[in-house]
Amino acid sequence: MIAGLNQELQDNFGIHFKDQSLLDEAFTQASYVNEHPNQGLKFYERIEFLGDAVMQLVVSNYIFRRYPKMPQGRLTRLRAAMVNEQSFASFARECHFDQYIRLGRGEEKAQARHRDSLLCDIFESFIGALYMDQGLDAVVPFVTTVVFPKLDEGRFDEFFDHKTELQELVQKNGSVTIDYRLLDEKGPDNDRAFKVAVYVDDKLLGEGHGHSKKHAEQNAARHALENLKEE
Amino acid sequence: MIAGLNQELQDNFGIHFKDQSLLDEAFTQASYVNEHPNQGLKFYERIEFLGDAVMQLVVSNYIFRRYPKMPQGRLTRLRAAMVNEQSFASFARECHFDQYIRLGRGEEKAQARHRDSLLCDIFESFIGALYMDQGLDAVVPFVTTVVFPKLDEGRFDEFFDHKTELQELVQKNGSVTIDYRLLDEKGPDNDRAFKVAVYVDDKLLGEGHGHSKKHAEQNAARHALENLKEE
Repeated sequence: MIAGLNQELQDNFGIHFKDQSLLDEAFTQASYVNEHPNQGLKFYERIEFLGDAVMQLVVSNYIFRRYPKMPQGRLTRLRAAMVNEQSFASFARECHFDQYIRLGRGEEKAQARHRDSLLCDIFESFIGALYMDQGLDAVVPFVTTVVFPKLDEGRFDEFFDHKTELQELVQKNGSVTIDYRLLDEKGPDNDRAFKVAVYVDDKLLGEGHGHSKKHAEQNAARHALENLKEE
Repeated sequence: MIAGLNQELQDNFGIHFKDQSLLDEAFTQASYVNEHPNQGLKFYERIEFLGDAVMQLVVSNYIFRRYPKMPQGRLTRLRAAMVNEQSFASFARECHFDQYIRLGRGEEKAQARHRDSLLCDIFESFIGALYMDQGLDAVVPFVTTVVFPKLDEGRFDEFFDHKTELQELVQKNGSVTIDYRLLDEKGPDNDRAFKVAVYVDDKLLGEGHGHSKKHAEQNAARHALENLKEE
């Protein structure tokens, strides 16, 4: 049993593993197993294989339903922005998973614990273990807490161009005029705040804030898309 | 409603869609929608995006549990052998899905109906529609009927080398001797049948049949792996 991990999962996510050995497997690298032979330990790679597929489905299902008008190409790009090494490594860090990985001495010395590639693997193996232990019904709330709020925080915005999407959507049935208007701009130079509104054929469709005009426009477009979606 | 499709799904798989529009969407290409404007039709691409992720998980979950000792690398290769355009196109044909696709006239003329790429898409979109309509509880039995028996029929054998896997498994804890012995060979030249047994350190572990010695050996190795798995 990995000290501290259970408590964190319980406190932060209300997760309690029925089969503790799955959690141990998810956080154990092959290098650790090799240094502790004859203990019947397993390393995370198989369960990571499963977790990868679970994440693909949970994320696909969420964005498919959240963006009911988004074409397949954009869904695929958005999923790729969410399901990748860099994202998963950051989720793993936010969950403090880096503290609990069991590594061999060589890997520990090589600072493997802080590597994106390992942290991504561990995030997936944790998802795989949770799926094995409690099914999708436990994975979805966890991912809803850890991953999906990042969509609203704009974490995937560089991959995810709301302005283009809005343009594609509203011009589907003919030409319209899309206008981004700066409503407000304030604060010191190093912490400037912008407020932007987006008008489609002079109808206000959304407003957005941001620390750059570009970011505020993206947020305005995102709100416009959400408003259109609800119509 | 696509004539005949409902009846086939009912007769062959006991599947009845609650939301008929999902099934229509799954079998409709953009070219058909473009030729029938103002009917509010949807084409299959979005739902195919979802079906792709569903298939990844259903297949991953099955092989993960069926081969509890298979290392991650081999699981990944086996999944790739099962989840690809050629396989999915063949499953679509076996289910007669090619008969029910709604295509525009140009695509029809271009014989798109028989193209692997389209049939693969339609298989995925059908899975996506079934998942939307009835969840994984309906997808798993369908895939268990249509896809998983192909593992036993040796459909993925060219991607899936049982002999290598057996060797890796039994030699994990030191060197052993693996011996394939021809037990029987009969039939006319154009329909020859072989029977092979595999011995590991002179212990019989499995037998296999095939129309070539190579295929019989692969089947013997596969049975050996299954026997070891059950130990």
